[in-house]
Amino acid sequence: MNFHSQLKQAWQKNNSLLCVGLDPDLEKLPAQVLKTNKPIYEFNRQIIDQTAAHCCCFKPQIAYYAAYGAEDQLEETIAYIKAHYPDHPVILDAKRGDIGATAQMYAREAFDRYGADAVTVNPYMGGDTLQPFLERSDKGMVVLCRTSNAGSAEFQALSFDGQSLAHRVAQKALEWNSLDNVVLVVGATYPQELAEIRAIVGDIPLLVPGVGAQGGALQAVLQNGLTADKTGLMINSSRGIIYAGSGDDFALAAGRAASELNLEINKLRALIK
Amino acid sequence: MNFHSQLKQAWQKNNSLLCVGLDPDLEKLPAQVLKTNKPIYEFNRQIIDQTAAHCCCFKPQIAYYAAYGAEDQLEETIAYIKAHYPDHPVILDAKRGDIGATAQMYAREAFDRYGADAVTVNPYMGGDTLQPFLERSDKGMVVLCRTSNAGSAEFQALSFDGQSLAHRVAQKALEWNSLDNVVLVVGATYPQELAEIRAIVGDIPLLVPGVGAQGGALQAVLQNGLTADKTGLMINSSRGIIYAGSGDDFALAAGRAASELNLEINKLRALIK
Repeated sequence: MNFHSQLKQAWQKNNSLLCVGLDPDLEKLPAQVLKTNKPIYEFNRQIIDQTAAHCCCFKPQIAYYAAYGAEDQLEETIAYIKAHYPDHPVILDAKRGDIGATAQMYAREAFDRYGADAVTVNPYMGGDTLQPFLERSDKGMVVLCRTSNAGSAEFQALSFDGQSLAHRVAQKALEWNSLDNVVLVVGATYPQELAEIRAIVGDIPLLVPGVGAQGGALQAVLQNGLTADKTGLMINSSRGIIYAGSGDDFALAAGRAASELNLEINKLRALIK
Repeated sequence: MNFHSQLKQAWQKNNSLLCVGLDPDLEKLPAQVLKTNKPIYEFNRQIIDQTAAHCCCFKPQIAYYAAYGAEDQLEETIAYIKAHYPDHPVILDAKRGDIGATAQMYAREAFDRYGADAVTVNPYMGGDTLQPFLERSDKGMVVLCRTSNAGSAEFQALSFDGQSLAHRVAQKALEWNSLDNVVLVVGATYPQELAEIRAIVGDIPLLVPGVGAQGGALQAVLQNGLTADKTGLMINSSRGIIYAGSGDDFALAAGRAASELNLEINKLRALIK
């Protein structure tokens, strides 16, 4: 099954467009899990159990594991999701990108070693460097387009022949998407861009980071980003969910935060014509 | 000591501009090392011992370790270089890039966990995402500018207001370089770009991948990339050196290949006015 079909199934079965980001910073983990042998895995496991009912997918950010030499706990986290929540695709957020032979190794890392369903990649080096990811017809490739950070305009908004770099990437993504396995990253912090990129890429799914406390942004994200069937988005929240609580009830607090955000998304999308 | 000073010392002490890329593909390693417990480390150790006299630095490509779950052997490889060849900076080739909090984790991965002296990064997300690397005044940040792959023009050569994206990145690098810790990647496969980028960035060092069998390119690389003092370049060769031989004498063959390439570089740079 191609990645777009996997996503459609996940949106429908879970009645959710919410993506829960698993960015476990050891300095922020509750005392309860820090006492265990595998604090990162233990933290994730509890968060996953409490949030799965309210989200469509999980997105571990590999830097948080790599900084601590905790690749084994990333492997176990993904294996846990696969075993217990098979309807939740796992997007490995790694923003990889390199020449062919090396990109092949990164594809192996994400898909074979970690067993992720999709991986985020950086388009700067050009489409030829993305081929090793694209060739994996059962996996997804999530391409940075317009990122959520304050400085993303520095290069992504540069305009040539009246078209921004981000829009050119979006246009190229249409060509790369012959196997229905391409997704684009567009930050919730740039809702106008979301509308323009949606217009370029048709029904290609978008991963939207940057939604947090701001409820206002959420409405604009849905208004500008939904496809005609009111799906097409993975709206990511990481810190707003996983650090919703810091005591012994951290996982319950995360579950509540995920539930609230998901209900808010579903309420808003029901209202959109 | 800032990274530019480290490089200058390495160029001078080793009388070399050659960078040896450590990209150990398990499928290509000689039988002799595959029999050992840590084949990747064992391969690297022997290559390092035979090539150190002919190069100025080493560049392990992290994908080759991550694909195999061999992060421990990458740690040991870098520790080995630090212990035995302290005049050879280690550039971790990881092409990282992410928003601030995550970039912080990647900086920790490269500099604190692995102990690398520099790390390669991708500029697509904008200069704000590079701050966590730049702040490390004793470390180097090596920014992709014009990469060596065939498709690098797809985005990097897009032109706005008469300036290409790669040239804009080069121009920004001048601003980012207030601590003398920025290096740019420019492929040997685009010698004209090398000249143009050298003109933009003054004496900022360039990491040049893509030199291999082609001696022709080497002359153009030196002609177009050297600074006035005939340094300013790290000319990388990976496969051409580490797979120069495939039998029991693989390390000696790598040493010979490194020696020949280094002599060729030094001969050519002596001839340049």
